[in-house]
Amino acid sequence: MTPDRSARRAGIIGTGLIGGSIGLALRSREWFVTGDDADPLVAQRAAELGAVDAVGLDPNAALIFVSAPVSQITAEVHRALGATSGAVTDVGSIKGSIVGAVPDGRFVGGHPMAGSEQLGVDGASADLFEGAVWVLTPVPGTSSSAYALVRSVVSSFGAEAVALDPDRHDALVAVVSHVPHLTAAALMGIADERAEEHVALLRLAAGGFRDMTRIAAGSPSIWPDICHENRNAIVGVLERLIDTLGDLRDVVAAGRRAELLAALERAQAARLNLPTRVVRPAEVAELRIPVPDRPGVLAEVTTLASELDVNIADLEIAHSSEGDRGVLILLVDTATVDRLCAALVERRYRPSVQALT
Amino acid sequence: MTPDRSARRAGIIGTGLIGGSIGLALRSREWFVTGDDADPLVAQRAAELGAVDAVGLDPNAALIFVSAPVSQITAEVHRALGATSGAVTDVGSIKGSIVGAVPDGRFVGGHPMAGSEQLGVDGASADLFEGAVWVLTPVPGTSSSAYALVRSVVSSFGAEAVALDPDRHDALVAVVSHVPHLTAAALMGIADERAEEHVALLRLAAGGFRDMTRIAAGSPSIWPDICHENRNAIVGVLERLIDTLGDLRDVVAAGRRAELLAALERAQAARLNLPTRVVRPAEVAELRIPVPDRPGVLAEVTTLASELDVNIADLEIAHSSEGDRGVLILLVDTATVDRLCAALVERRYRPSVQALT
Repeated sequence: MTPDRSARRAGIIGTGLIGGSIGLALRSREWFVTGDDADPLVAQRAAELGAVDAVGLDPNAALIFVSAPVSQITAEVHRALGATSGAVTDVGSIKGSIVGAVPDGRFVGGHPMAGSEQLGVDGASADLFEGAVWVLTPVPGTSSSAYALVRSVVSSFGAEAVALDPDRHDALVAVVSHVPHLTAAALMGIADERAEEHVALLRLAAGGFRDMTRIAAGSPSIWPDICHENRNAIVGVLERLIDTLGDLRDVVAAGRRAELLAALERAQAARLNLPTRVVRPAEVAELRIPVPDRPGVLAEVTTLASELDVNIADLEIAHSSEGDRGVLILLVDTATVDRLCAALVERRYRPSVQALT
Repeated sequence: MTPDRSARRAGIIGTGLIGGSIGLALRSREWFVTGDDADPLVAQRAAELGAVDAVGLDPNAALIFVSAPVSQITAEVHRALGATSGAVTDVGSIKGSIVGAVPDGRFVGGHPMAGSEQLGVDGASADLFEGAVWVLTPVPGTSSSAYALVRSVVSSFGAEAVALDPDRHDALVAVVSHVPHLTAAALMGIADERAEEHVALLRLAAGGFRDMTRIAAGSPSIWPDICHENRNAIVGVLERLIDTLGDLRDVVAAGRRAELLAALERAQAARLNLPTRVVRPAEVAELRIPVPDRPGVLAEVTTLASELDVNIADLEIAHSSEGDRGVLILLVDTATVDRLCAALVERRYRPSVQALT
């Protein structure tokens, strides 16, 4: 699964905060990294900071990360696919429209769920992805070898690779990222308009308000594209939030204390249960799945594991001769292997399980 | 302004997180502190942890802090006023109904804008209030000496005392505290209901979502009382938030990019301008205000300063013979003294200013 030593050449298109952090993470793992940016000064700065070895687009790169702004990703992915014969992945905050616009098996959509209010390569850090979830969006046409390469590299950064259908990804980030951002901006805007009448208001803003509005300090420029590309999901979640707040308003107005308490208790329990950093399973089992000669097996198996909340600790494709034939080998938490097996059998796979010591 | 050494006896009713922290802060400033709690084990624990010197209600206390749950504050304030001849203050999250129910000059409503997700005296800390805003709500009947004592003690904790009208306080905390809390719970609830369909969702929750929902992990039990006492303000702000989110939904649905960008840019600017910790002014001026023999002068002058965002660094009442007669001496930032003076003259006061070196 680890690429040949001779093949450890990677490229980055877009050497800002995320691209620069990928460069630092790759170089610290002995990759030779070439970086390109629409702004030559930004690429030059990345080289100065040691985020890339050289400036440009390496035709021999085994893997290229496209971390351009969302509106430019599709064009840059096509350029990367045209310039190299390696795998290409991206880091865009939305996936459905990008993955749909690039019907090429060498492209694997991606989205690291890590960021920073800082912008630009000067905020880059080799350990930005340590413990973060890195979503990958394989689809039926995705090449197994491209997927396995991207997965192994992002895992080597300390990230947890989670496979999701691209549209499913977009629906979920609307809930955990896009609508929260708009809500933070709305709360900040309301406080600010009241502050115009009463200048002392913002001095009353304590830790809770600061936490809730922190993301509103991030760069607004990325949001029109994200909101455009993911508008259906965002509008749907905003509707749900408006309804929920309307219910809370009615509960408060009518003094329905028990209902209010129940809603807050549910939220408290959910927040306390929010998973923290990736936990490596104590025991893993090896699951071998003979892979039939039909497209989409990899996407189906990996996204199924995500749906079942089965964490794939490692993934390998063995005896691959051509296309998707061969054996897919997964290492998964022993505690979860049975439910993945059962779901695979239901889908006519023939998995076999071996406990590992 | 500092009380007599012999008078440094204080009491606390309700020795939980806030009460315990007040006790620790008082004791580290050489107060003798007696603490009482509806649950004797809680008071005992406060004594074990060194948050109080003794358990009980001290009839000789010069100052009593009531930090009971909101629904019990009015009764406990009356009890404290009956048991002692000193000043009494509280730390309740709402002020209008409490201050309205205690028409006694010795009572000064208060609300430290500091907290913690932790509950109970075991989470108490002597420096919880360092750099925090501590709202005080003097009203026309408030005794100058009671106000000056409470103000000097909370200032000695490192807090910034800000005087506000009680109803104004309630309107403002609806914006910066109560509605943000309900919104965090709503976002967490929506993510949780989606997580029931899709277990991997919550693994996608990165730092921004964690920040936004952190306060939802706090104890729900205090909220039914707060929402009851402050329902009008909360309902009003919820309406405003629902409208704002509805506008954002329309903007996203219609792809009105420039409008979206402008809203996010306003929010970003406001968030970046959010005042951080209290900044002590580099230069202060002394403002002396002869105080006429009419009630409400202290409340009027101090809340006027807050309205004008004039930070009072120190406050003293000199030559006070009886009632509110005498001279009110304020130390304020030199840069802001003129606007406070002008507003006072407009209200027929006769302030005089002296620059201090």
